[in-house]
Amino acid sequence: MRLLKVDTLAEAREKLLKAAENKIPAVETVGFEEALGRVLAEDLSSKDSIPGFRKSTVDGYAVMAKDTQGVTESIPVFLDVIEEVAIGIQPEKTVGPGQAVYVPTGGMVPEGADAMVMIEYCEKFDDTSIAVYNSVSPGRSIIMEGEDIMSGAQFLKKGKIIRPQEVGVMASAGVTEVQVYKPWKITIISTGDELVDAKQKPEKGQTRDINTYSVSSISRNHGFEIIDRKVLKDDKEILTAAISKAMAESDVVICSGGSSQGEKDHTADVMDQLSNEGVFTHGIAIRPGKPTILGYDEKTETILVGLPGHPAAAMLVFELMVIWLYRQLTGQKEAPKTLARISENVAGGAGRTTCLLLELTEGEDGIYIAEPVLGKSGLMTTLTRADGYTLVHGDTEGLKEGELIRVTLF
Amino acid sequence: MRLLKVDTLAEAREKLLKAAENKIPAVETVGFEEALGRVLAEDLSSKDSIPGFRKSTVDGYAVMAKDTQGVTESIPVFLDVIEEVAIGIQPEKTVGPGQAVYVPTGGMVPEGADAMVMIEYCEKFDDTSIAVYNSVSPGRSIIMEGEDIMSGAQFLKKGKIIRPQEVGVMASAGVTEVQVYKPWKITIISTGDELVDAKQKPEKGQTRDINTYSVSSISRNHGFEIIDRKVLKDDKEILTAAISKAMAESDVVICSGGSSQGEKDHTADVMDQLSNEGVFTHGIAIRPGKPTILGYDEKTETILVGLPGHPAAAMLVFELMVIWLYRQLTGQKEAPKTLARISENVAGGAGRTTCLLLELTEGEDGIYIAEPVLGKSGLMTTLTRADGYTLVHGDTEGLKEGELIRVTLF
Repeated sequence: MRLLKVDTLAEAREKLLKAAENKIPAVETVGFEEALGRVLAEDLSSKDSIPGFRKSTVDGYAVMAKDTQGVTESIPVFLDVIEEVAIGIQPEKTVGPGQAVYVPTGGMVPEGADAMVMIEYCEKFDDTSIAVYNSVSPGRSIIMEGEDIMSGAQFLKKGKIIRPQEVGVMASAGVTEVQVYKPWKITIISTGDELVDAKQKPEKGQTRDINTYSVSSISRNHGFEIIDRKVLKDDKEILTAAISKAMAESDVVICSGGSSQGEKDHTADVMDQLSNEGVFTHGIAIRPGKPTILGYDEKTETILVGLPGHPAAAMLVFELMVIWLYRQLTGQKEAPKTLARISENVAGGAGRTTCLLLELTEGEDGIYIAEPVLGKSGLMTTLTRADGYTLVHGDTEGLKEGELIRVTLF
Repeated sequence: MRLLKVDTLAEAREKLLKAAENKIPAVETVGFEEALGRVLAEDLSSKDSIPGFRKSTVDGYAVMAKDTQGVTESIPVFLDVIEEVAIGIQPEKTVGPGQAVYVPTGGMVPEGADAMVMIEYCEKFDDTSIAVYNSVSPGRSIIMEGEDIMSGAQFLKKGKIIRPQEVGVMASAGVTEVQVYKPWKITIISTGDELVDAKQKPEKGQTRDINTYSVSSISRNHGFEIIDRKVLKDDKEILTAAISKAMAESDVVICSGGSSQGEKDHTADVMDQLSNEGVFTHGIAIRPGKPTILGYDEKTETILVGLPGHPAAAMLVFELMVIWLYRQLTGQKEAPKTLARISENVAGGAGRTTCLLLELTEGEDGIYIAEPVLGKSGLMTTLTRADGYTLVHGDTEGLKEGELIRVTLF
C-alpha cells in the first residue's frame, strides 16, 4: 500500500492554481444576448453618452426653473407654450423666459429649459398658454445627457457574469457583440465494475451510476461543454486508453470512483503516467472528499481530476476544485453567501476541513436557522435535503450553537 | 385624464393570483437530465431500495462485530478468510464466528457479517487468515439496504427545482423520465415612437430599446419560451393587432413603455378592450414601478402585463409579479435570501413599497454591508451596480443604519 501525504484544501488549491495558471479559458466573440450567463472577457466602454440627450422623466412642460420661483397653488405663473415636442423627435425651438414646451416622458428637453413641471401641476389657460402651479428647481425631472453612462466611460468590467441587467445595459450602449470566456471542454468518466446505467435494473451488488449524471449537470449549469462521458470497468488498459483520448479533446478530464486506495483503483497511476507534470495531490484533508487526485499535463494542457466515488463527495469536490478554478482564472467576484445561525455545536475537524451540509429554515428573528443534514457521506439524499453547505476548517474549534455562519447555496 | 386607484404590492399580487389561479402551467414528461433547472410536477418515489444491498464504505473485511470485542493493537484476533468478494458481485458464502470476507469499497457485505474492519487495521497472517487489530461495533462502515431511500418511499416532492443533486438521486433510483411544469410562452412588446434597435445609432431624442432584451433575458433564465418580441410605434391599431395576435399564442403578454399616463399611452385601453375580465390593476404603489398594468383574459387564458417604460423598473416589476406568479402556481419554495447590514438610514415609503437596490461589500464582522445604489430609477447602471434588492414596505418606519435586512440577489 502506498502511504500518501494528504494536502489541506488550501494547499491543494494553491497547487492546482499554480499548475494550471496558464489555463486561462480562451476568449470568443458572441452576440450580446447569447452572452447571458457567460463571463465577460473584456472591459466595456460606451462610444456614446447614455442617454444621448437631456431626457424628461415625466409628461409635462419644459421650463426655465427661475420662472417658477415663488409659485404656489394659489399664485400660478402663466407661460407661453411655444412647441409640443413629440417623443423621439428633436425640439425645434429654444425655451426663453416666460416660455414652455410640452415634452412627454422619455422625450427630449429643449435647449434653454432646465426643469420639467409635471402635467398634473399645469392647466391649459388658452390655446397658447398654461398656468403653472408648482415651483421646480433646476434639473427637476430631467436625466442629464450621459447621466447613465458618460461617453467613453467604462461601464462593465472583465470578469463580470452577465445577468439580464448587463444584457440591458449593453443594448442601451449599442454593444451588440462582446468577448466572453469560452467554457471548458470536459470529459467525465465513472469507473467501477459494479456500475450499471441509470436505465438498468441493478443485480445484487450492482449500483446505478450517479456521478456522470450529477457532474454533467453541474457542468451544464456552469456552461461547460461536455465532450464525452462514459462508465468503464476498472481496468488499467481501458482506463489508460480512455483518459489518453480524453486528454487530446478536453480541457478537464474527470474520473470518479477510482480514487480510494483499494487494490483495483488505477486512476492515480494512469493519470500520473499520462501527464508530464504528474499527479501532485493524492488526497485532500476534507470530509467528505479525501480520496481526491489532482494533476496537470502541460503538453495537452489538461487538468486531471480523480473524484471520490461517493456521489455526494464527488459533487462537492467538483464544485470546490474545478468550478472554483474556473472562477479564479476568469477573475469572477465571489457570489455573496447567505448568513444563518447554526442550530447546534459542530466540532472542528482536527486538521481536516468539513463540508457541512445544511438545511435552512426560518428563524423567529428573521435570521435563517441552519441545521446540519445528518447521514453518511455516501447518501445522495443528504444532498437533496440540503439547501447549501459551509466549510468548517480543520484548524478552528468548530462552530458554536447560535453562531452566524456563511452558507453557500447549491 | 383618468384618475386611477393604485394598488399596494400585496393587493396587486392577490388580484393577479386570483385572476390567474387556474393558470397552473401544463405538465410534460421529459428525460431526467433535461429536467435540470425545471420544476418537478409530481412526487417521486422509488420502486427499489437504495442501495439495494448492504454496501461497504471501506476496503476491508466483513466480520461479526462480536468477534472483535476487546481487540486492541497489541491483542489481535485471528479470523479465517473464506472468500474475497469482487465489486459488483454477490458474495457466495455466509460469514460465521471466526470468519471474515474481503469486501472492497462499494462492494456487497455478505450475510452473517454485521461490520467492516478497514484494511489498515488488518494484516495477512497466511493465505487463508488475517490478524485484526481493531474492535468494531455492529453496523460499522456499512450503508444498510434502503438507508439512502427505502423501497416505496417518496424522495422528491412536487414543486422542487431540479438541481444537479436531484438529477443524481433520480439516476440512483432509476427514474429516467419525470413530469415537470411546462415553461410559460411569452410575447414581449416594447412600445414607443422614440425606440430604435440596439444595433442602430439613435438620433437626438431617440433611445435604443432595452426592455425587450432585458425582459427576454430574465425569461430565458427562468426557462420561459419566447414566442415573439417586437418594438412597435405607440399606435392604438398596431398595438391592438399585436396584442391580439400575442394573446392567441402566449401565456403571458408583456407590453412595456406604454403604461404611464401620457396622452399617447394606449396599453391599458387596448388590454382592457381585448380581455373579458379586463384590466384590474392600474398602478402599483411601488417605487420604481408605479405605472404597472395587470389584466387577465379567461377566453385565451392569457396574463396581460403592462410594465413601466423605465428599464430598471420594468425588470423589477417583471420579477416581482410574473416570476413571482409562476413560482406561486408551481408551488416552489422561496429561495433563501442573503442577510446584510444596511449602511444607512432609509426612510419608509409613506404607503408605497420601495424596491431598494443594494451593493454588498464585506463587513469587518463577517456580515455583509448593504449600501443603497443611488441614481434615478431610469438609469440602467443602477441595476448593473447592484448585487440585489430589498423591499422596504410603505407601512413601516423604514430601515435603521446597522439593521439586518434580507437581500434578494439578482
